Amino acid sequence: MIKSRVLHLMGIGESLVEEKVRDLIHTQANPTLAPLAGCGEVRLRITAKAEDDAQADSRISPLEAEIRRRLGDFIVGADAQQIENTVSHMLRESGLTLAVAESCSGGLISHRLTNIPGASDYLVAGLVCYSNPAKTALLGVKEETFAAHGAVSEAVALEMAEGVRKRLKADIGLSTTGIAGPTGGRPAKPVGLVYIAVSSVAKKVCEEHRFRGERESIKHQTANAAFNLLRKVLESGLLSQ
Amino acid sequence: MIKSRVLHLMGIGESLVEEKVRDLIHTQANPTLAPLAGCGEVRLRITAKAEDDAQADSRISPLEAEIRRRLGDFIVGADAQQIENTVSHMLRESGLTLAVAESCSGGLISHRLTNIPGASDYLVAGLVCYSNPAKTALLGVKEETFAAHGAVSEAVALEMAEGVRKRLKADIGLSTTGIAGPTGGRPAKPVGLVYIAVSSVAKKVCEEHRFRGERESIKHQTANAAFNLLRKVLESGLLSQ
Repeated sequence: MIKSRVLHLMGIGESLVEEKVRDLIHTQANPTLAPLAGCGEVRLRITAKAEDDAQADSRISPLEAEIRRRLGDFIVGADAQQIENTVSHMLRESGLTLAVAESCSGGLISHRLTNIPGASDYLVAGLVCYSNPAKTALLGVKEETFAAHGAVSEAVALEMAEGVRKRLKADIGLSTTGIAGPTGGRPAKPVGLVYIAVSSVAKKVCEEHRFRGERESIKHQTANAAFNLLRKVLESGLLSQ
Repeated sequence: MIKSRVLHLMGIGESLVEEKVRDLIHTQANPTLAPLAGCGEVRLRITAKAEDDAQADSRISPLEAEIRRRLGDFIVGADAQQIENTVSHMLRESGLTLAVAESCSGGLISHRLTNIPGASDYLVAGLVCYSNPAKTALLGVKEETFAAHGAVSEAVALEMAEGVRKRLKADIGLSTTGIAGPTGGRPAKPVGLVYIAVSSVAKKVCEEHRFRGERESIKHQTANAAFNLLRKVLESGLLSQ
């Protein structure tokens, strides 16, 4: 029999992952180790040939442990588990509710969350607000903020996350604003520039990212990074000061 | 000229698809057949070289028919990427604006529309309202309507489409409500039952669908049917009585 285990990594590039485990890729015959890429996510697949499931596990485990020793900080999930599954599980465990305000990810975060059965237990609602007027009408982003910082800015991301959380009476607000391209980029704000914010009563955080690739890839990278930020904030104790 | 047709499959793995059509991949020269994968979807692309469009179609059609005979249950759309392109083009031409209220499609309609550059020109906003309270708070769906008909009903779909159009001051409202599964189905309202509505000042229409398949497949079928309904309504003259 053949058994595989896939580790999902975030916040690290494909080439650096390969560099960190190159020796393992080249020296291992059973199990084998292979990097997989695509959709803004890096994965490592461990594949063992064995007589039975237990033997496969006993071959996979030591290699997995070694990879976790080297890259543990970047591993966000194992197997077919995508990062939204991890976040979904954490939200369900915590009993916290989420509201999402998407600009450049355009509904992809809501779509990926609602691919998981029972998402309505924690997802209050998702708002896709592309235009500035929609961000003002639905989320309460101030016109002065657009004027001072532009729609793609930390200030707007934070007001979006705050606004969606408060207006939808959720525990957590999550927002994205950025330039998915191919048009709309300028030297100061190029295609791929994305701000992602999380807001709770006690905490506000915003991350700046500079993604590369096609429009749909930038949307996926944005969604992955948003789920990852949410995971980190939930792990660090969202409700503490 | 070269013409391609892409078939989108859901609920079946890439390797099984390849196995089912391997002979067609290897024996065909014109048209050619190639599997495409990525981002949770398997696609088959048929590409014909021909003198003109009609000749290309005549080459593509027999191969498509053979693939549908083998894999029809898993094909969720043909050129499915293109139906939102068609709708996008029609909206742009007409100068009409759109607001979307999604329940069972969970953000997928907004996501697919915003994969097209410039979607903000006609997409005012998209609201993902899973819960009844969110449908009431964001869209104004009446509590009596839920009580009388249930959340998955023509009446709720129509109130969602009306509500999102009026509240977001768009020319057209588009809504979905249904049971994507795997849980939540009952004999009277099984998994796959979906209502899709379109609203304008002059017109209200609602379609009932009964889709089959996995949760994500039902979401894609819902989005495809929603784009198709919108296309039909736009073609028939949305603003006439």
